[in-house]
Amino acid sequence: MSLWFTEKQTDSFGITAKIKQTLHTEQTDFQKLDMYETEEWGNMLVLDDMVMTTKKDEFVYHEMVAHVPLHTHPSPKKILVVGGGDGGVIREVLKHPSVEKAVLVEIDGKVIEYSKKYLPEIAGKLEDPRVEVKVDDGFMHIAQSENEYDVIMVDSTEPVGPAVNLFSKGFYAGISKALKADGIFVAQTDNPWFKADLIHQVYHDVKEIFPITRLYTANIPTYPSGLWTFTMGSKIHDPLKVKEERFQEMETKYYTKELHHAAFALPKFVKDLTE
Amino acid sequence: MSLWFTEKQTDSFGITAKIKQTLHTEQTDFQKLDMYETEEWGNMLVLDDMVMTTKKDEFVYHEMVAHVPLHTHPSPKKILVVGGGDGGVIREVLKHPSVEKAVLVEIDGKVIEYSKKYLPEIAGKLEDPRVEVKVDDGFMHIAQSENEYDVIMVDSTEPVGPAVNLFSKGFYAGISKALKADGIFVAQTDNPWFKADLIHQVYHDVKEIFPITRLYTANIPTYPSGLWTFTMGSKIHDPLKVKEERFQEMETKYYTKELHHAAFALPKFVKDLTE
Amino acid sequence: MSLWFTEKQTDSFGITAKIKQTLHTEQTDFQKLDMYETEEWGNMLVLDDMVMTTKKDEFVYHEMVAHVPLHTHPSPKKILVVGGGDGGVIREVLKHPSVEKAVLVEIDGKVIEYSKKYLPEIAGKLEDPRVEVKVDDGFMHIAQSENEYDVIMVDSTEPVGPAVNLFSKGFYAGISKALKADGIFVAQTDNPWFKADLIHQVYHDVKEIFPITRLYTANIPTYPSGLWTFTMGSKIHDPLKVKEERFQEMETKYYTKELHHAAFALPKFVKDLTE
Amino acid sequence: MSLWFTEKQTDSFGITAKIKQTLHTEQTDFQKLDMYETEEWGNMLVLDDMVMTTKKDEFVYHEMVAHVPLHTHPSPKKILVVGGGDGGVIREVLKHPSVEKAVLVEIDGKVIEYSKKYLPEIAGKLEDPRVEVKVDDGFMHIAQSENEYDVIMVDSTEPVGPAVNLFSKGFYAGISKALKADGIFVAQTDNPWFKADLIHQVYHDVKEIFPITRLYTANIPTYPSGLWTFTMGSKIHDPLKVKEERFQEMETKYYTKELHHAAFALPKFVKDLTE
Repeated sequence: MSLWFTEKQTDSFGITAKIKQTLHTEQTDFQKLDMYETEEWGNMLVLDDMVMTTKKDEFVYHEMVAHVPLHTHPSPKKILVVGGGDGGVIREVLKHPSVEKAVLVEIDGKVIEYSKKYLPEIAGKLEDPRVEVKVDDGFMHIAQSENEYDVIMVDSTEPVGPAVNLFSKGFYAGISKALKADGIFVAQTDNPWFKADLIHQVYHDVKEIFPITRLYTANIPTYPSGLWTFTMGSKIHDPLKVKEERFQEMETKYYTKELHHAAFALPKFVKDLTE
Repeated sequence: MSLWFTEKQTDSFGITAKIKQTLHTEQTDFQKLDMYETEEWGNMLVLDDMVMTTKKDEFVYHEMVAHVPLHTHPSPKKILVVGGGDGGVIREVLKHPSVEKAVLVEIDGKVIEYSKKYLPEIAGKLEDPRVEVKVDDGFMHIAQSENEYDVIMVDSTEPVGPAVNLFSKGFYAGISKALKADGIFVAQTDNPWFKADLIHQVYHDVKEIFPITRLYTANIPTYPSGLWTFTMGSKIHDPLKVKEERFQEMETKYYTKELHHAAFALPKFVKDLTE
Repeated sequence: MSLWFTEKQTDSFGITAKIKQTLHTEQTDFQKLDMYETEEWGNMLVLDDMVMTTKKDEFVYHEMVAHVPLHTHPSPKKILVVGGGDGGVIREVLKHPSVEKAVLVEIDGKVIEYSKKYLPEIAGKLEDPRVEVKVDDGFMHIAQSENEYDVIMVDSTEPVGPAVNLFSKGFYAGISKALKADGIFVAQTDNPWFKADLIHQVYHDVKEIFPITRLYTANIPTYPSGLWTFTMGSKIHDPLKVKEERFQEMETKYYTKELHHAAFALPKFVKDLTE
Repeated sequence: MSLWFTEKQTDSFGITAKIKQTLHTEQTDFQKLDMYETEEWGNMLVLDDMVMTTKKDEFVYHEMVAHVPLHTHPSPKKILVVGGGDGGVIREVLKHPSVEKAVLVEIDGKVIEYSKKYLPEIAGKLEDPRVEVKVDDGFMHIAQSENEYDVIMVDSTEPVGPAVNLFSKGFYAGISKALKADGIFVAQTDNPWFKADLIHQVYHDVKEIFPITRLYTANIPTYPSGLWTFTMGSKIHDPLKVKEERFQEMETKYYTKELHHAAFALPKFVKDLTE
C-alpha cells in the first residue's frame, strides 16, 4: 500500500493520493492518460499528470458547469460541450427537460473510451439519444458554427497542451458567434490562489465580448487550492436575476438554488481580479 | 530543494509542500510544534503534523472566524478566543471599534512564542492594550466564566490531542453559560469531505443548546479538502438577518458583506449534515 | 509520470521508484503481492511492500545464493530451495551440471504464477524436467525430510509474515537433519546496517548446529542498505577452501571465482557480528 | 515527523530520509549546501541535493579512500586531499604514523565551516598541526604542483557543478606530475549501476597515464546503489601486492587487511567495465 500519485499543482506544492492500482496508462495522440484506482477518491482520471475528475468529488464540477448557465437561460434547447470527454457535464445537462440536443466535441477519443470503461457513473449518459458525440477539435467546431447554440460549456484541461487555444480571446469571439442571440457561455477558469493572472485575463477578455460577464466559484477538493472558478459570458440573461420559479427540482449533491446566487459572491481577493 | 513536508489529511490522501528550512521544531508539553519556511506558503505553523496556518492563506480563516460573528452581534465589547495562539483571530477582532477587551486563552505558550517570532504579521496585535493573553486551559476558563462575553470564538486544532474536550457537548453548554444573554459563539468544525460525521455531531449538539445554529464555510487551501466549516451558536442574533448598515468598512482580503451571507449557502451534501 | 512506489526500509529511511504501471495487485492467502513495471528496474515483485526482486538487479541475489554453496560442495546432486517462488535461484542451480534434481517449496503459489507471467527471464526454468515445484510450507517440508539433500537454500522474505519460522533455531536443526552427511545450507540473512541483531542471532544459532559457519555479502541495490548478507552452515566442506579446479565456467553477471572468496571478507563492523 | 528529504539518484529512483530539522541551508558560491539532522543517519551533509556524508555511514567512504592507497604506499609522508572539506579523509590519513603533512584543498570554505560545526566527529582533525587547509581550486593546485606528494586522494562530488574538471584526463595527467616518482592516486568514481560509462571512461583515462590502474569497491548505503567504486592509479606500487607486515593496527570500522584485497575482487559486470 505504498504506491502514491503526486500532482505538483505548483513547483512547490501538491496533493498526494494512495493508489490501489493503475487501470490504464497510455500516451494518446494528445496527452498522457492515466486511470488510477485510488483509496480516497475511487477511480481517478489523470491527464498529463493533472487530476481531471474522480468518482468521489466529480459531482461538484459537473453540476456547477451545467446548472448555473442552464438555469440562467430561460429555455435551453441546444447545448454544446467543448472538451468534457468524461461525460459528466453531459449527464447534468440532460437533467434539464428543455434540452433537445447536447453536442459533445472532445478532441481525444481515448478520454471518452476510458471514461466509459472506468467511470460509468460519470460517462453513462453519453449514449442518450439526445447526445451527439464528436471526436474533433473544439476550436474548429466553434469556428464553423454560427447562431446555433443556446448554451456552450467549455470543459477543458488547464491551458497547457491541447487546451491552449481554448483560453484565447479569438476563441471567445467564436463562441459568441456560435451562440444564438440570447446565448450563454461558461468556461472553467482555474483557481485564484495560483492562477490569478489567468482569471484576470480571461475575465477581461470575455468582458470585451459579452455584455454580461460573471465569475463564480465552487469547492473541488482534488483541484489546486480547492477553490475553482468559472467565467460566464452572457448576451442577455443575467445569472443573478434568475427568477425563483425558474429553478427546477432535480437531484443534485452540490448545486442548490441558494448556491446558484451565493457562488457569485466572491472572496475579496478574487473579486479584485474582476476589476 | 528536495525537502518536502507531507500532511496526510486522511490515511490515503494529503498535501505536500516544499520546505526551504525548518525554523523551529519542538515537542512542547502539549504537542509537536514545527515552524517551516515553505516555498509556496511562506512560514507555516504545524502542530502534530497538521498545518495550522501559513503566511499566504491565513487571512481566510482568521477573517471568517472573527468577522461573521462580530458583524452578527450588534455591539460586541468583550471577546474570548479559545486557542488561536498564533494571534490571527485577535488581529481581526481588534478591527472592530466596539471591542473593548479581547481575551486569548491558549493552552500552549510555545504556540504564542513562536508565532510572535516567525509569524509577526499574524501575531503582531497580541501586544495591543485591549488584549489579555492567558496561557491556560480553555476548557477550564470557560467552566469558570459566567455571563461574561459577547462573543466566544473557538480556534482549536482538530479534535485530537489537547483539543479533544473542545468538541464536546459539555463544552458548548459551558460556552453558553459564559456568554451574555445575547452572546454568540463560533467554532471551527473541520471539513465535510472527510469529517462529515463530526460536523453532523457538533451541529446537532450546538443546536440543542443555542436557539440559532448556523453552519458556514470558507475556502482554505492548506486545510483538508479546501472547504472549511464553522459552526455558530447564537442566543438571539441571527447572522442571516444582519442589517446592511451594521457592516463596517474594514480592510479584508476574503470577507465581504456579500460573502457574509453567501457563506451560509451550503452545498447540498453539506446542508444535508444539518438536517 | 508522477506515480512512485516507496519502500520504507526502516521507520525513517527508504527507497522510492517511479512506476509506469501496476501489472498485478492482490492480497494472497499469505501476503500482499504487487507486480510493478518500474522505470529504473523493469518489472519488480513486491511482497508486503518489500521489494523481492527486479528484472535489472535480480542476478546478484540469485547467483550469490546459488553459486557459493554449489561450488563449495564437490558434487551437488539434489537441491532444495525453500521459498524462492520467482524461480531465480532455481535458474542458477540448473547451471551446475552435477545437479540431478532441484525441489522448490514455495508456500505461496501466486508468487510462482505471477513471476512466470511477468518475470519470465527469472522464472523461465521452473518448467525444466529436473525441477519439482511444490506449493507447500517449507518449514513442514524440512521437518519431514531426512538425509536427503546435498544443498538447501533458504530464499525467504524478511522475518515477518509467512517467513517468521524460517529464522528460528529449530528450523536450522531441521535443515541439518534434512541434509546429507556432507550437506550445505545457505540462507539470506538481511543487512548489517539495520538488522545487525538478526545477523548476530542467526549466525550464532547456525554455529551451534553446523561445524562450519560463514557469513558472506553481496551488493543488491534495491535491498535495504545495498549490502546483503548470506549465512552458510556446512557439515564438512569449507567455502574458503574450494580448490581452483572446482570452479566451472558458467555465464554469470556478478559471481566470479575471485568474488567467491572475496565475498567472505567482511567489513569490520559486520565481522564483529560473528564474534 | 512528516518531513522527508528525497535524493533522486536517477530520474526514476531515489532514497528518502526522515528529517528532524534543517541545521543549515545556504547557496554558497559553488553549490547549494544543506545540513540536515536525520532520524536514521544522524547529521547529513547534502550538496546540490546529493548526500555527501552522514554521521552513521561516513566511516566506509573515508576509510576506503584513505587506507587502501596509504597501505599500498610503503611510506607515505606528504598527502594531498582534493575536495573532502568535511575532513573525514584527513582524519583517516592522520592515523598513519608515517604521514608528516596532509594538505586539504577544498574549493568551498562553507563545506569546511559547517562540517566543523555540525559534523565534529568527522571534521575534528582539521586542526591537527600536520594538516594544512587551503580554500582553493583543486584543479589549479594540482596544475601548480610537481613531484610533491606521495599520495593524492580526490574526494569530490559527482561530476556536475564545481567537480566537473576533476573527472577529466587532463586532471589525471596533472596528478601524475604532482606525484613523486612512486606516487599513488585514488579518486571516488561513482557507482556501476547507474554510471557505468563514467567508470569505464575514468578507468581507461587513468590507465593511459598510470602503469598500475585498479578499481575497488565499498558499500555506502546512502550513496546510489549502495556500491561505490574507487579508481586507483599508481606509478610503482601495486595494491594487490602489499606485504602482510605493511598492514598496521589501527582502529577502523570497515577497512581490514582482508578487505584491502577483497575490495579489488569485482562483480563480473563491474570487472567488464575495466576491459
